[in-house]
Amino acid sequence: MSRKLSLTGFPEWLPQERIVENHVLDTLREVFELHGFSNIETRAVETVGTLLNKGEIDKEVYGVARLADDAPASTNDPNSLALHFDLTVPFARYVTDNAGYLTFPFRRYQIQKVWRGERPQDGRFREFTQADVDVVGDGELPLTYDLELALVMADALERLELGDFEVRVNNRKLSEGFYRGIGVEDPAAVLREIDKLEKIGAQEVHEALVGLGLNDDQATKALKLAEIKAADASFADQVEALGVEHELLSEGLAELKSLIEVAAKIKPGRIVADLSIARGLDYYTGTVYETTLIGHESLGSICSGGRYESLATKGKKNYPGVGLSIGVSRLVSRLLSTEQLVASRAVPTAVLMALPGEDDFAEALEVAELLRTRGVATEIMGKPEKFGKQIRHADRRGIPYVWFMSHDDAGNRVHEVKDIRSGEQVSADPNTWMPAETDLRPAVGPNADAS
Amino acid sequence: MSRKLSLTGFPEWLPQERIVENHVLDTLREVFELHGFSNIETRAVETVGTLLNKGEIDKEVYGVARLADDAPASTNDPNSLALHFDLTVPFARYVTDNAGYLTFPFRRYQIQKVWRGERPQDGRFREFTQADVDVVGDGELPLTYDLELALVMADALERLELGDFEVRVNNRKLSEGFYRGIGVEDPAAVLREIDKLEKIGAQEVHEALVGLGLNDDQATKALKLAEIKAADASFADQVEALGVEHELLSEGLAELKSLIEVAAKIKPGRIVADLSIARGLDYYTGTVYETTLIGHESLGSICSGGRYESLATKGKKNYPGVGLSIGVSRLVSRLLSTEQLVASRAVPTAVLMALPGEDDFAEALEVAELLRTRGVATEIMGKPEKFGKQIRHADRRGIPYVWFMSHDDAGNRVHEVKDIRSGEQVSADPNTWMPAETDLRPAVGPNADAS
Repeated sequence: MSRKLSLTGFPEWLPQERIVENHVLDTLREVFELHGFSNIETRAVETVGTLLNKGEIDKEVYGVARLADDAPASTNDPNSLALHFDLTVPFARYVTDNAGYLTFPFRRYQIQKVWRGERPQDGRFREFTQADVDVVGDGELPLTYDLELALVMADALERLELGDFEVRVNNRKLSEGFYRGIGVEDPAAVLREIDKLEKIGAQEVHEALVGLGLNDDQATKALKLAEIKAADASFADQVEALGVEHELLSEGLAELKSLIEVAAKIKPGRIVADLSIARGLDYYTGTVYETTLIGHESLGSICSGGRYESLATKGKKNYPGVGLSIGVSRLVSRLLSTEQLVASRAVPTAVLMALPGEDDFAEALEVAELLRTRGVATEIMGKPEKFGKQIRHADRRGIPYVWFMSHDDAGNRVHEVKDIRSGEQVSADPNTWMPAETDLRPAVGPNADAS
Repeated sequence: MSRKLSLTGFPEWLPQERIVENHVLDTLREVFELHGFSNIETRAVETVGTLLNKGEIDKEVYGVARLADDAPASTNDPNSLALHFDLTVPFARYVTDNAGYLTFPFRRYQIQKVWRGERPQDGRFREFTQADVDVVGDGELPLTYDLELALVMADALERLELGDFEVRVNNRKLSEGFYRGIGVEDPAAVLREIDKLEKIGAQEVHEALVGLGLNDDQATKALKLAEIKAADASFADQVEALGVEHELLSEGLAELKSLIEVAAKIKPGRIVADLSIARGLDYYTGTVYETTLIGHESLGSICSGGRYESLATKGKKNYPGVGLSIGVSRLVSRLLSTEQLVASRAVPTAVLMALPGEDDFAEALEVAELLRTRGVATEIMGKPEKFGKQIRHADRRGIPYVWFMSHDDAGNRVHEVKDIRSGEQVSADPNTWMPAETDLRPAVGPNADAS
């Protein structure tokens, strides 16, 4: 995006870019609904109390208060309001607010803006769209959903035709059990270091692990575990070959194995066990996911998530959940800048009705209405101009067809339509004419001109 | 909505209600695109300076500031941030930000949340969705767009099938010119009083006008003008019969007449001249619109707007605009509470795959994938249960079909599907079976059970 934004970190798309974003959002919506997920939206604001509830607020949160009020939003006032920084905390609150009106397991997707007060110099977005898909159970939630979620994402990414990708899956119990099995006392700290593996490399992580108090052998074993990656259940043999034993390790290993076994059958090569996946700061308790778009590794994980043993609680009720979240704005921003997805035109319009004279406006409207009845997006010149100027207007807007009304020598109405790309002009019946199927709507795909 | 909201004024829909809202939003989107309007979104925040730019901030604006910052957003700091309270101010800013990248007349629609810090006791929403549709010109904008916008809304409301409605149109020049023609010095003050006509009645408005310094004859004439209403150009004769003359009046009269003449041909009875329409506090300079849903007069105008001689300016550039805005949340809230629109089920799912045993999960996934390929939304039981329990699960979720896999005596796989409403169970081929067309997606329409 070479345009300068008037507020750093708050992306806004041009109309032709928005068509690409809408294509991505529509595809996600279609896939999520095909998999039986219901759509909800939650309000943009939560109370500071709700946001704090999930542990420390380590995101940079935007408070919200009426300009006319004296008191700003504050972490000291749990009733003050703030913009949500993800869709998980609001979803958990929605579930407890509405538990009596929902049926469980509750399958929902949610596509909304979230806000984080990031430092603008980091080049990060401060407002961006997330697409979340989760299943939440009442009391229990079978492990099959962990597999299903990975398959939903694989399905979505396949339909988006973004090229090769890998949904990489690990299990927190497996990692934590392994670390405990080799005598590590603070597995969470180890996870946070392992999470940096792709960024800083094995040697630096090894040093950091030793810095945490692990001996050389423990650090080496922790790194060996993180190196294990396989597209089938063979990963489990590799783990077992490391000779570590712990009850939690066995449990996590069995969970991940059962997931990968079926995944390898249904989507071979798409969903892989990758024991380096740690999801450092997030509070997952079992399965964890990250997704890499091959050729766009620098984007990091485009879609991440995992299982919460306790997504929400209310009194004695516990609601476990498993879900995934796509950072839509980051992904769309990349697809636009690389021209991996471009719109064939900037407007929905397929036909511009040329206007011969002021008095023809009503008739032009009637013809436009007929075309729209058949799904042909049509707009009308605002005022009569020379036909050359009307064609240039269509050309500048990227509208493929111009419709002309005139009279023949006998004074009868004549309708013609010109494809302004080929210059071909043919007579047309307002009651039946259709454009080429591919011209009906803007197409979204790779830029054929781009390398 | 009998549920209690956890934050007053911030509506959140249940999944089946959200299906109705999405139906409304999808319909609007389809109509706007058929009329050649491009979609954009603007960021949720504007600078306080931008918001103040449009005159005094008479809406209750929510400021936004990082909780970690000391300084709250403030009207004293034009660089501080605030949530937008409508989509017009952000659109004007977007146009000047991106003028070099847009082609004019620029036709855009925008469907987003807006926020207003209303008093909760007023029962008003503090967060709600607006759908705006505008055309903006570079320097000039022909009057034909004023008619087109009214037709776009009429088309949208017809497709929503909400029953009878009236798009009521007036022209500010007409009213202002008339008031000046009878010797009124502050026409804006008179407009504000006329705006209250439907709420408080003619007698009270008459008194208020006298309170403004109008004599009895002036007040009577102003009210006579406001009483004029017609579905065709005959309204102009009624105005002329009042015997008032002013240049601005003639100009406004000609504009409104040319609009209504064509509208009466294209959408007879839908678009009417109504000279009581004033749009009290808004800065329109020509055509003004309000829309009444017959039978829901208490909702007030569900869709309002008008023409700005100067929607935006940048240096010597002036951008006139004309547009309309629908208060989607208020409308949807009413449609839900009256059950004028309900969803036939709460989930997108058409088929629940019953799960005979743990080991059948992979095969159930494969069948589900086949169904989804044909657009059949399908979900799978998370764990094997007695078939009766699986059917009850589908029933509770409103899923019309349950798919059963079993084996015949020879050990061959048998597929059957049960319509749980009729109880009918038939054998089905995963490669070809389709549900009834009306069961593919949740239908949205009037509640047949409601009176």
